[in-house]
Amino acid sequence: MTNRPSTALLTDHYELTMLQAALHSGAASRQCVFETFARRLPSGRRYGVLAGTGRVLDAIEDFRFGDAELADLSEREVVDATTLDFLADYRFEGNVWGYAEGETYFPYSPVLVVESDFAHGVILETIILSILNHDTAVASAASRMTGAAGARPVIEMGSRRTHDGAAVSAARAAYIAGFASSSNLEAGRRHGVPTGGTAAHAFTLLHESEREAFRAQVASLGTDTTLLVDTYDVGEGVNTAIEVAGAGLGGVRLDSGDLVVQASEVREQLDSLGAAGTKIVVTSDLDEYAIAALAAAPVDTYGVGTRVVTGSGHPTASMVYKLVAREDDDGEMIGVAKQSQDKISVGGRKYALRRRNELGVVEAEVLGIGEQPVNDGDDRDLLVPLVTAGEVIGREHCTLAAARARHEASMAELPRSAHQLSEGQPAVETVFLTETP
Amino acid sequence: MTNRPSTALLTDHYELTMLQAALHSGAASRQCVFETFARRLPSGRRYGVLAGTGRVLDAIEDFRFGDAELADLSEREVVDATTLDFLADYRFEGNVWGYAEGETYFPYSPVLVVESDFAHGVILETIILSILNHDTAVASAASRMTGAAGARPVIEMGSRRTHDGAAVSAARAAYIAGFASSSNLEAGRRHGVPTGGTAAHAFTLLHESEREAFRAQVASLGTDTTLLVDTYDVGEGVNTAIEVAGAGLGGVRLDSGDLVVQASEVREQLDSLGAAGTKIVVTSDLDEYAIAALAAAPVDTYGVGTRVVTGSGHPTASMVYKLVAREDDDGEMIGVAKQSQDKISVGGRKYALRRRNELGVVEAEVLGIGEQPVNDGDDRDLLVPLVTAGEVIGREHCTLAAARARHEASMAELPRSAHQLSEGQPAVETVFLTETP
Repeated sequence: MTNRPSTALLTDHYELTMLQAALHSGAASRQCVFETFARRLPSGRRYGVLAGTGRVLDAIEDFRFGDAELADLSEREVVDATTLDFLADYRFEGNVWGYAEGETYFPYSPVLVVESDFAHGVILETIILSILNHDTAVASAASRMTGAAGARPVIEMGSRRTHDGAAVSAARAAYIAGFASSSNLEAGRRHGVPTGGTAAHAFTLLHESEREAFRAQVASLGTDTTLLVDTYDVGEGVNTAIEVAGAGLGGVRLDSGDLVVQASEVREQLDSLGAAGTKIVVTSDLDEYAIAALAAAPVDTYGVGTRVVTGSGHPTASMVYKLVAREDDDGEMIGVAKQSQDKISVGGRKYALRRRNELGVVEAEVLGIGEQPVNDGDDRDLLVPLVTAGEVIGREHCTLAAARARHEASMAELPRSAHQLSEGQPAVETVFLTETP
Repeated sequence: MTNRPSTALLTDHYELTMLQAALHSGAASRQCVFETFARRLPSGRRYGVLAGTGRVLDAIEDFRFGDAELADLSEREVVDATTLDFLADYRFEGNVWGYAEGETYFPYSPVLVVESDFAHGVILETIILSILNHDTAVASAASRMTGAAGARPVIEMGSRRTHDGAAVSAARAAYIAGFASSSNLEAGRRHGVPTGGTAAHAFTLLHESEREAFRAQVASLGTDTTLLVDTYDVGEGVNTAIEVAGAGLGGVRLDSGDLVVQASEVREQLDSLGAAGTKIVVTSDLDEYAIAALAAAPVDTYGVGTRVVTGSGHPTASMVYKLVAREDDDGEMIGVAKQSQDKISVGGRKYALRRRNELGVVEAEVLGIGEQPVNDGDDRDLLVPLVTAGEVIGREHCTLAAARARHEASMAELPRSAHQLSEGQPAVETVFLTETP
């Protein structure tokens, strides 16, 4: 047990009623394989970035039905007494494999694979999808932004534009995808994300004049601080900022207006005032496209809010959690899939390999059904063990540092087309290997 | 103190550094008014629905810096010792006014007004905005969906497509806006939202045949259950469902295909099998437009996932928290606003009234600056007291039942244009009253 709250009720009602029916029929004990994957990337995107795996491991450990949870389910008559007894003893006892956190992914990449009996695996569906769909949506958008920013740091500051709990996870996901820091203090405490910030217009408006506000900020926070210069007139604001803080001022922030023009003007002004080292931070409704448009402007740091925490138009990653194989009456594992006219559903346990050419550039996402594709030496096997017989063993693949490094390494080996912001096909093709007869 | 966890670190870094600077300059003790409002509705929307106010009241009560929070801020050197001392004793001591939860709103409606000194008010910005921006985005989308569904119930089932914590709040917000129930168990426990569910394809695939799966579900959950009939062939699925459960089967669910055509075919089939009372539940990627398109189809219940929890294209409500008035050096309150070319910023404390004609139909959102607009008897004053001198007194305006009733009553008095799904202007105009000289 951990000190964290139970995650058991962060679950859809039907997971527990299906469990009840399966306990009743006896099918609950059948061995199963559940796979988490996205049938497609968000429209026009070239790749996705997996995030949330570390949170999933915590959530599986914390998936315990304590007295409070059981009392609620009993009182509201969600499930019967037999099912409550099962839940009281519930501990996940199966295996989990997955892509390392921070890894890029493509359509049908089996980013998380759960092996267990039906009862133990089915009720994890909702919490696994909630975490991976959210965190992956944010990381995937964030990765495009850090790609567009190149060497310039990007700060996540979208907490106010997303759910209070989601904000903490969004900060973590953005950091994995290369953001330099976040404004969210709880992300600092809980996940170790570096935090920072500047000042708001309210701070300037609180004082009798901009000069008084700047004096107060510099006196308390030092000259290395960043002053917000666009409350009244930017040109005057910059002059006042340097008068108050001196040419050693850390930075100025622009939060409105035509940033391309304004950044150049402010850079010239700062240079003419001898403040060549004072940085320019821009923060006005930026996304990957706005960042790219500022590539030639003398901007030092980007602050991104709404667009990163809402996935830049794609707030969820469309991941699903599907039963792909199960034990039959004879104890043999068989592949299963829903019949569908409009969606590809491929039964059977998948194994994944990233095919790379001799230069290390990715050529395909190769999925073997029921067996591991052959690695010719240049390739990379993608599934790592995360949980074995109920015990979390894969934390090393999900630390903040490891996930951030994995994202960077994974991006470096993708073909150049992955870095295009324009709409297009996934940068590499997903290939299913099927046995030849 | 409550048993809920502290909300104090769900806050942007710069709120605390601004506090530090203002404590240093002495401006921290100036009386201030902060207003929460949206400058615009999401593009083309006719109205918004405020949600989250009840959660804001909890968050203000829980905004306490305990040992763990203070130790973290100290260790990471976020603020200085003076500021830590202030935070250790922090209790919000000001007043909060706001629209009742569930109320409709329009551009510039002052949905939450905080009166306190700068120090006590500024650091609530992030948590207030996180809650209101998320919950309001969901409620605003949900309201359009329940409007399109008319008398037919709509079920929220989007937990897996949004952050695990956001899912609970989304269920609450959707219920306020008229949804009948949610799949989210924690929303049932924490907020009292009714929960329910059907079954997934995995349950059918687990069994040797659809018939075996249906038998298991009916045996355990009774004939009043809803069977998912589209795993293989819908026509066969419906036949099997009625054979297994009898003509008293509660419902069948369709989760794919052309629902308009399929609902009619299934209705005919059910009727021909004597199952006239068996309901049809549809659930495939629905939003308000898809619901409207099914108005003439024989559908009984809609299940909505992704699109409601992500705000149907608008996952955040664009609310801001602005300093609009503060004490000056002489102790007088003065209006303040940032200078801006592209945004209207109106200084001064706002008072709000919904102007209604003699038939009770809303004609305008009237905002008085510094004074309450005159209510001619048909009108409705919008701001209710929520917190007085730090004590929460307005819970009656934020219970789930009250908010749901408020939403319904507020919708009933809007002009008909509010109910149009097509893009357009806000259904009523926002009018600022300014003193004539």
